[in-house]
Amino acid sequence: MNVPVLKNYTGGKWTAPENHGLLDVERPSTADVIGRVPLSTAAEAGRAIAAARAAFPEWSAVPVSRRCELLRRLADRIRDRSRELAETISRENGKSLPDAEAEVKRSLENAEVACAMPVLQQGDKLHGASPDIDGEVLRVPLGVFGMIAPFNFPLMVPFWFFPYALAAGNTCVVKPSEQVPLCMARVAEFMDTIGFPPGVFNLVHGDGRAGQALLESPDIAGISFVGTSGVGRIVAERCARTGKRFQVFGGAKNHLVAMPDAKMDDMIRNMITSCYGCAGQRCMASSAIVAVGDDVHEEVCGRFVAASREVRVADPLDPEVAGEAMVMGPVISAKAKSFILDMIRTGIDEGATLALDGRNLAVPGCERGHFLGPTVFTGVKPGMKIHRTEIFGPVVVILKADSLDEAIRIINGHEYGNGASIYTQNGYYARRFKLEAQVGMIGINVGIPAPVAQLPFGGMRASLMADTKTQGKAAVNFFTDLKIISERYWRE
Amino acid sequence: MNVPVLKNYTGGKWTAPENHGLLDVERPSTADVIGRVPLSTAAEAGRAIAAARAAFPEWSAVPVSRRCELLRRLADRIRDRSRELAETISRENGKSLPDAEAEVKRSLENAEVACAMPVLQQGDKLHGASPDIDGEVLRVPLGVFGMIAPFNFPLMVPFWFFPYALAAGNTCVVKPSEQVPLCMARVAEFMDTIGFPPGVFNLVHGDGRAGQALLESPDIAGISFVGTSGVGRIVAERCARTGKRFQVFGGAKNHLVAMPDAKMDDMIRNMITSCYGCAGQRCMASSAIVAVGDDVHEEVCGRFVAASREVRVADPLDPEVAGEAMVMGPVISAKAKSFILDMIRTGIDEGATLALDGRNLAVPGCERGHFLGPTVFTGVKPGMKIHRTEIFGPVVVILKADSLDEAIRIINGHEYGNGASIYTQNGYYARRFKLEAQVGMIGINVGIPAPVAQLPFGGMRASLMADTKTQGKAAVNFFTDLKIISERYWRE
Amino acid sequence: MNVPVLKNYTGGKWTAPENHGLLDVERPSTADVIGRVPLSTAAEAGRAIAAARAAFPEWSAVPVSRRCELLRRLADRIRDRSRELAETISRENGKSLPDAEAEVKRSLENAEVACAMPVLQQGDKLHGASPDIDGEVLRVPLGVFGMIAPFNFPLMVPFWFFPYALAAGNTCVVKPSEQVPLCMARVAEFMDTIGFPPGVFNLVHGDGRAGQALLESPDIAGISFVGTSGVGRIVAERCARTGKRFQVFGGAKNHLVAMPDAKMDDMIRNMITSCYGCAGQRCMASSAIVAVGDDVHEEVCGRFVAASREVRVADPLDPEVAGEAMVMGPVISAKAKSFILDMIRTGIDEGATLALDGRNLAVPGCERGHFLGPTVFTGVKPGMKIHRTEIFGPVVVILKADSLDEAIRIINGHEYGNGASIYTQNGYYARRFKLEAQVGMIGINVGIPAPVAQLPFGGMRASLMADTKTQGKAAVNFFTDLKIISERYWRE
Amino acid sequence: MNVPVLKNYTGGKWTAPENHGLLDVERPSTADVIGRVPLSTAAEAGRAIAAARAAFPEWSAVPVSRRCELLRRLADRIRDRSRELAETISRENGKSLPDAEAEVKRSLENAEVACAMPVLQQGDKLHGASPDIDGEVLRVPLGVFGMIAPFNFPLMVPFWFFPYALAAGNTCVVKPSEQVPLCMARVAEFMDTIGFPPGVFNLVHGDGRAGQALLESPDIAGISFVGTSGVGRIVAERCARTGKRFQVFGGAKNHLVAMPDAKMDDMIRNMITSCYGCAGQRCMASSAIVAVGDDVHEEVCGRFVAASREVRVADPLDPEVAGEAMVMGPVISAKAKSFILDMIRTGIDEGATLALDGRNLAVPGCERGHFLGPTVFTGVKPGMKIHRTEIFGPVVVILKADSLDEAIRIINGHEYGNGASIYTQNGYYARRFKLEAQVGMIGINVGIPAPVAQLPFGGMRASLMADTKTQGKAAVNFFTDLKIISERYWRE
Repeated sequence: MNVPVLKNYTGGKWTAPENHGLLDVERPSTADVIGRVPLSTAAEAGRAIAAARAAFPEWSAVPVSRRCELLRRLADRIRDRSRELAETISRENGKSLPDAEAEVKRSLENAEVACAMPVLQQGDKLHGASPDIDGEVLRVPLGVFGMIAPFNFPLMVPFWFFPYALAAGNTCVVKPSEQVPLCMARVAEFMDTIGFPPGVFNLVHGDGRAGQALLESPDIAGISFVGTSGVGRIVAERCARTGKRFQVFGGAKNHLVAMPDAKMDDMIRNMITSCYGCAGQRCMASSAIVAVGDDVHEEVCGRFVAASREVRVADPLDPEVAGEAMVMGPVISAKAKSFILDMIRTGIDEGATLALDGRNLAVPGCERGHFLGPTVFTGVKPGMKIHRTEIFGPVVVILKADSLDEAIRIINGHEYGNGASIYTQNGYYARRFKLEAQVGMIGINVGIPAPVAQLPFGGMRASLMADTKTQGKAAVNFFTDLKIISERYWRE
Repeated sequence: MNVPVLKNYTGGKWTAPENHGLLDVERPSTADVIGRVPLSTAAEAGRAIAAARAAFPEWSAVPVSRRCELLRRLADRIRDRSRELAETISRENGKSLPDAEAEVKRSLENAEVACAMPVLQQGDKLHGASPDIDGEVLRVPLGVFGMIAPFNFPLMVPFWFFPYALAAGNTCVVKPSEQVPLCMARVAEFMDTIGFPPGVFNLVHGDGRAGQALLESPDIAGISFVGTSGVGRIVAERCARTGKRFQVFGGAKNHLVAMPDAKMDDMIRNMITSCYGCAGQRCMASSAIVAVGDDVHEEVCGRFVAASREVRVADPLDPEVAGEAMVMGPVISAKAKSFILDMIRTGIDEGATLALDGRNLAVPGCERGHFLGPTVFTGVKPGMKIHRTEIFGPVVVILKADSLDEAIRIINGHEYGNGASIYTQNGYYARRFKLEAQVGMIGINVGIPAPVAQLPFGGMRASLMADTKTQGKAAVNFFTDLKIISERYWRE
Repeated sequence: MNVPVLKNYTGGKWTAPENHGLLDVERPSTADVIGRVPLSTAAEAGRAIAAARAAFPEWSAVPVSRRCELLRRLADRIRDRSRELAETISRENGKSLPDAEAEVKRSLENAEVACAMPVLQQGDKLHGASPDIDGEVLRVPLGVFGMIAPFNFPLMVPFWFFPYALAAGNTCVVKPSEQVPLCMARVAEFMDTIGFPPGVFNLVHGDGRAGQALLESPDIAGISFVGTSGVGRIVAERCARTGKRFQVFGGAKNHLVAMPDAKMDDMIRNMITSCYGCAGQRCMASSAIVAVGDDVHEEVCGRFVAASREVRVADPLDPEVAGEAMVMGPVISAKAKSFILDMIRTGIDEGATLALDGRNLAVPGCERGHFLGPTVFTGVKPGMKIHRTEIFGPVVVILKADSLDEAIRIINGHEYGNGASIYTQNGYYARRFKLEAQVGMIGINVGIPAPVAQLPFGGMRASLMADTKTQGKAAVNFFTDLKIISERYWRE
Repeated sequence: MNVPVLKNYTGGKWTAPENHGLLDVERPSTADVIGRVPLSTAAEAGRAIAAARAAFPEWSAVPVSRRCELLRRLADRIRDRSRELAETISRENGKSLPDAEAEVKRSLENAEVACAMPVLQQGDKLHGASPDIDGEVLRVPLGVFGMIAPFNFPLMVPFWFFPYALAAGNTCVVKPSEQVPLCMARVAEFMDTIGFPPGVFNLVHGDGRAGQALLESPDIAGISFVGTSGVGRIVAERCARTGKRFQVFGGAKNHLVAMPDAKMDDMIRNMITSCYGCAGQRCMASSAIVAVGDDVHEEVCGRFVAASREVRVADPLDPEVAGEAMVMGPVISAKAKSFILDMIRTGIDEGATLALDGRNLAVPGCERGHFLGPTVFTGVKPGMKIHRTEIFGPVVVILKADSLDEAIRIINGHEYGNGASIYTQNGYYARRFKLEAQVGMIGINVGIPAPVAQLPFGGMRASLMADTKTQGKAAVNFFTDLKIISERYWRE
C-alpha cells in the first residue's frame, strides 16, 4: 500500500514540509501506517497565519451570499464523497462505518447551516433611536480564526467552526489532530478546487507545537479548541492574555439517569449506543449511569451488563460487520488503551465491582489493534476516581441514587457539565431535570443529547470555557463582532 | 455638613465596615470631604459573594416576569429621584448637571430595557429537530456576577450590568469606584426597600483589593469590568484562568474625522460637546480630530480652538451655571490632573503645537478643585505619545490626513478601537467609514456615538476584551447561558 | 347614586354626544343602571378617525423610546388604580373580583410588553446584500387602527391592541362594548392627562353602527376585532375589500381532555376554574370535557358534577365573598341568559343527560340579576348542537373518547380551533397533543391556556381570521409594516 | 418543430387534460406556437387540491431538515439547468437572456433561503412563563397553499412562494400563467424525480377558471397571488370570506427621483436598465421619473431621451445580441401591445409631450412579434392618466418637482406603493426619502429596488394586499401559523 505523505495547505498552495521528521499515522485497528503527517514548526504555522491575515480584507468584503455560494460547493462535494470520507474516518479513527457516516452527515449539516449566513448575519436597525438619529448594528467578521481539533471527530469538529467562520467573512487556519489528519487533508483538496481565494482556508498539520503557534500569534482573532479541560484552561488563559476570543471545549462525564417509570427495553438499547459508540470516545458519550431506587438499580445493572456483553467488537472495516448498526472498534492508540487499563485497575482498587471486564479481548487478525471490550463497574460511589475522571473509552460506571434529587446532585457536583440524560415518560421528572441539571446539553430519553446543527452545541463549567457555544446562531455570535452605528444628517 | 459614612449592603443587611481605615470621598470641585467609604477586605467581599451565592437558587427560580416587576420598581424609584441622583453624581464626580442628568437617563433606560427580559430571554424551539425528537434552547442564568465600576460614570456603568444580570436570574456583587461611591449607595438604599430577596443585590465598597477578591472567587460566574486596558488585560486573564466569563471595557482614543463637505457650524458645536463634556473623562469622549485636506484642517484648527476658548469652566453646582448646557467641571482628582499636566508637557516636548493651553486656569471659590481648561494641540502626528495615550481630560489633538483612506488608517492603526465619528453629508463617505473603520461604535455626524440602551455598547481591540458587548440583546447574551435540550418520549 | 354619562374622547377632547338616545349600562348582578353611554353615529366615529388620521404623521415621527415613555406612564396609572379598575370591571361585567384583578394584571402586562417596542420594532440590516449595496428593513407604523371590543374583557381586549399600536407609531380609535364602557372611559381619562398628543388615542362609544363606520372608513389601516365568528367573517371580508389589515378573534369551544394517568384532584379543581370563571364567558373558558376511557369518564362525570355543585354563585361585589378565590357571578345580560336557557333546553331535547341543572338559581338580594348556576351535560356526542355551539355561559358538556386519537379527532373536527388542554403527566401523550391538536393555544395541565403577554395569543380556523396573532412579537407584526431599502452610493 | 403539449402534475402523476380545448403558447418575438397548455377545469383543479390535502398530514410530520434535503436537490437541479431554464423563460416571455438569467438566479436564491427553514422555523421558548408553567411557541404549517402566477416572471414568482411553503410543511398547488407555462412545467419534471412524496407539489395549468377554483376551495389554507390590483382586490375579498390567508401582489407605478447632486452618468444608465429591462414589464420596473428642480429636469429629459434612443430592441434569442447586457425584447402579447398603444394615444391627448415615440418600430425577421421601442413622455403632470396607470410596457413619463418634498408628495399621492428610488449622494436626502416615501421598497441609487431573497419583498397600499410580505423571514410568517403552549406538570 502506498502511504500518502500529507502537506500543509497555505495561501492556496500545497507546501512541502520543512526538513524535520514526519509522524506516522496509524490505523487503530491494526497499527498499520496509513499516512505520514508533517509536524509543522511555528514558522510554518506562522506562514499559514500570514496567508490568512493577508486574505482577510478582500474576503471580508465579498458579499455574504457569494461567500455562501462557495461554501455550498463544498457541501455538495462532501455530499458526493460522503462514503469515501466515512471510510477515511473509520480507517484513521477506528469508529464504525455507521458512526463515521453519522459524523459526515453532521459535518454536512453544519456546512448547510453556515450557508444560511445571509440570514443569520443580519444585524439590527432602529430608525429614530433618538431624534433624527438612526441606530444600526452590523455583524462583522473579526479576522483570522485558529481551529485546533481532537482525534475523536476528525471531520465534524473542524466543521463546527470553519464553515461559520468563513461564511461570516473571516479566514482560518485549521490544525487537525496529528493522529487523524487524513480526512481534513481530503477536505483541503476539495477547498483547493472550489474557487475560494487563496489564504481563506489554510490547513496546518502538526502537534501541540503548531497549536501553540496559533495561540501566541497576535494575528489571530480567536481560537476554537476542542480537547481536555486541562489543556483547555491554558488555551483560555493564553487567549485572554493576548486579546483573542476563545471557545474551549473540554472534557465530559455524561450521566444517564434511569427513572423507575422508564421504558426499560428502549432505555437499555439507547444506553448501549450512547456508551459504546465510537468506543466511548465521543464527548457526548455517556459513561455514568445513575439508577434511581433499588429496584431500578438492580434491573439496570443486570440488563445493562448483559446487553454490554452482546456488543460486537471488531475492525470496523471488516466486511463481515459492514452492515451492522452497533459495532465497536478500537480506541485510538496504545497510549489511550494503556490509560484506560490503568483506570480499570484504579476502579478495582477503589472498591468498585468490575461487573464486566473488557480487558484481554482479542480481535482475530487485528492483534496489534487497540481493542478493549465493554467494561462495567457497579457499586460506584460519587467521588471515586473512576467517576471523577473522563476515561474516554468503553468503561461505564453505575451508581445508585435514592431519588431524582440525589441523581441531580451527583450530576451537579461533578466537575464537568457537558451532557446528561434522563429516562422517563413523566413530564414532571423531565421538566425538573431540564431545569435543575446544570449541564449544557440535556436529553430526555435521548442518550446522546448532541443537538442538531441548527441548534447550539456546548457544555457548561469545565466542559466549555467560552461565552458562546457553537453551531447555529451561537456560532454566528462567536464568529462575528458587533459594530454599532449612530447616524444623523443635518438638515440641508 | 454631616459627612455620611457608607456601609456595605450584603445579604439584605447594612454591614458596618471592619476595623480598618475609611477613605475620604472628596468633591472634585472643592476637595471637600463629602463622605467616607470603607475599603473592604477580601473577607468582606467574600461575605457578599457568599450571600449572592446563597440567594441564587431561589432567585433564579422566580419567574422572569416577577423578577422584572421588582426591577420596574427600581426604575420608578430612579425616575422619581432622578434630580437627587444627578446632583449626587455631579457632586462626587464633578460633571455638569446636564451631563449628570443624561447619565441618570441612560441608567434608567438600561433598567427599562432589562425589564423586557421576559421577551429577550426567550429561547428557541425546534419541534421535529429529528424524527420524534424536539429540540429546545433555554436561556438560563449562570450564578453570581461581579461588577467593578470606574469613577467616570458612577451610576450608569453599574446599570449597564446589574439590571440585566438580575432580570436574567443571576445575583450580583457591585463594587463602585471608591472615588464616587455615593450614588450607588443611594441605589442600594432603594434596592433595600423594594422587595428583592436578600442577597440578590449586594454592594461592596472598596478599592482594588475588593475587586481582586471578586476576580479570585470560585463562586463568581462572571465579571463585568470597566477600567484601563492594562488592568483589564489582567482581569481577563484571571477570569480565563478561573473559568469565569468576562467583559472588560478598557481604554479609548476616539477620533473625529472632518470631511470637506461637513456642515462646519454644526460640526464644531458637536465636537466641542464630544471633547469637553465630563471634562473629557467619558470613554466615548473624543480627543483626536482628523481633518481631511489642507483647507478643512486649517479651518477646523482655527474654529475649534476659538470655540474651545468659549467653554465655560466652573463648579457644576454653582447656581450661576445651573441652566447652562455646556459647562465643564473639574477632573476627578489631583492625581488625574497631575497626569494630564504631564501629558501636556509631553506633547510640547514631542513637538506638537499647544494651540490652546488650559493650564493655570482659576475658578474663583474653587481654588482647591482639580480644574483644567480646554487644551488643544495642533500639528500632531500619529504615533506621538499624546496621540497614542488616553489622556482622559480636556486635551484634544488635531491631526491632518490627505484623504479619507488615510484618516481611516490612522484610526485602524491605533491600539484602541472604541468609537470614531465622521462628519460628512455624503452617503458614500459615510458608508465607507461604517464598513472600514475598525471600531466598535461609529458616529455619522454624531460626536459621541454611544448607542442607546436598546442597542449594544462596546468597542473593539484593546477597548473591549469580551465576546459580548453590553446593553440590549448583547447584555442578555452575556448574562445567560444556553441549555440545549433534545426531548423524545417513546410510544405508549 | 349619581349615574355617569359617558363622552367620546376625540382628538384630545371630551365630546358631548350628538342629540340621540343614550343607552343604559346595567350592572348584571342587579340590573341597576350604573351609567349611560352614547351610541355614536357614523359621523361621530368619523370625527374620531379624522382626529387619529391627523395625529398620525407627527406621532409616527416621535422616536419610539419617547412613545414608550408615555405608555409607561399609562402602565403606572393602571398599576396605581388597579383596585378601582378591577371593581369597575366587576361591577359592569359581573365577573368576580379576583377574575377582574387578573384581567387588570394581564392588561398591565400587555402595556409593559408594548413598552419593549424599541427592542421589538428593530428591523434587519444586511450590509453587502449585493456588491456595494446594503439592505435594510424598517418596521414602520401603518396609520390609524380601529379596535372593536366585546363585553367579556372590558379592559384586557383593548390592551391586547392599543398599547402595541401606539408604541409602534400608529394612532387608534377604540370602541368598547356598549355593555361595559366604564373601565375604558376611565382609561381614556388617564390617557388625557399623561401627555399623549391629541388624536393619538381616541375613544368612541357605541354599538355596531360605530363599529361599521370604522370598517368602512378609507382612513383606517387595520381593524382588531373580537366578537363572534359570524360577525367576524363579515368584518374580515369588509376589511379585505377596503384594503385594511384585520385581526378577527371569533368564537371558541375549548376542550379539556382527561387522560387516565391525570392527577385527578388537581385536574378537577383546575377544570372548575376553567369552566366557571367569569361565568364561562371567557374565550379561553373550557366548556367541553373529553374523558378518555370508561373508567376516567365515569370518575370525571361524578367528581366534576360534585365539584360544580360546590361553586359559589353570588354578586361578586357582595362583601361576604370578597376574599374567595372561586366565585361565579351573573352572565352579562337577560338576553345572554335567555340564549343559554335555550341551549340547555336544546341539550335536553338532543338527548344529552342534564347531570347538573343550574337554572332556577336564586341569589338573595339580586333577584333581577342574570344568574345561572353551574350546569353539566353528560352523555354528549360530537355533533350535538350543545357541543357545536359556543354557549358562553356556565354550561359544560362531557364527552367520552376511547383513545387519545379519538379525543384529538373530536377537537380537530370542531369548527372552532381556539384552545384545548390535556391532563396527563405523560410526556408522550403531551407531545402528541401539542403536535396534533389543531388549535391555536394548548394547555398541558393548564385549563385556561391563555399565554402570558410576552407570547402570542390567538386561535386557529374559525376562532381567528388573521395572519397574525396578538400579544408580544405577534402584535408587533400586526401593527407594523415592513419597508425594505436597497442602498448604494457611487464612488466619489 | 415539435410543439409540446403540457400536462398537469397532480398527486405525483402527469394527468392528460380533460377533453377541452388546449391553448396555444406563443413566442412573443415571433408569435410562433411553442407549446399547448390545457385550460384546466374546476374539477381538475379540485383533484390537485385533493391530492395536496391528502399529502399534507404526512408531509407536515416529516422533520423540517429532511424536507429541506429534498428542496436542496431542487436547488441543485435549478443550478444545473439554469441556462436551459433561462432560454425557456426568454423564449416564452420575450425577456433578454441576461434578464432571464437574473430571474433564474433570484429563483434559486429563494430556494436556498427556504432551505434555511430549520433555523427560520424555530419557535420561542419561555420557561417559567408563570410559576411552574413553561410557554412555547411552535411555528406550524397550515395545509394547502394555492399560488397563482403572472406572465412577467414565469419562474421567479412561483419560487417566491412554493419553496417556503413546502419547507415549512405545507403542500401546494401552483397555477402558472397560461401565457408562460413552459418553465414551470420543466420544474415540475424536476420535482417528479427528486423524491418528494406525491401530492406535496402540484401543478395545474389554466386560466382564471382554475385560479377561481383555488380561491373557492374550502381545502385551501391560503393564496399567494400576483396580478393586477383590480383582480387582486377580488382575490383578497374571496379569501377573507372563505377564511383563507392571502398575499396579493398588485400593480405598481415606481418612481425615480433625480436630485440635483446625483451622479448624472451613473444615474441615466441605471434609469435605462430600470425602465426598459423586460420591456418595462417588471413589477419593479420604473416608469415615472421625477426630476427635482428646473436644471435637473432639463438635463434628465435630454439625456434620458438620448439614452433611450440607444436601447437595442431585438428578439432576445437572436444570436447577434446574445452577449449584450441591455437588449429589449417584445411585450408579452398583441393584446398587451394594443393596450400600450392606447395609453400612448391617451398621453398625447392629455397634453403630454411625446419626446420619444417607440411605435412603428420594426424588428427584421420578427414582423409578427409584439415589439415596441422606448417611449418617453415629458411635461407630464400628476393625475394624468399616463401617470396614474400602470402601463406595463416601455413607456416612461417624466415629471418635474420643485423640491424633494414635492417629489415625495407625488409618490405618496399615487394609488400604488410598490417601489421608489432616489438618486443622490446626500445622506440627508436619502434618509428623508427612506422615512417619508410611503412605498414598500426603496432604492437609494438603485433603480430596481427589488430586495435580495434574504430580505422581504412587497409593496404597500394597492400594490400589496397582505399582512405579510414574501421572501426571507416574511415568507416564513405567511406560510406558518403559531401554536402557543402552556405546559405544567403537577408534583409527583
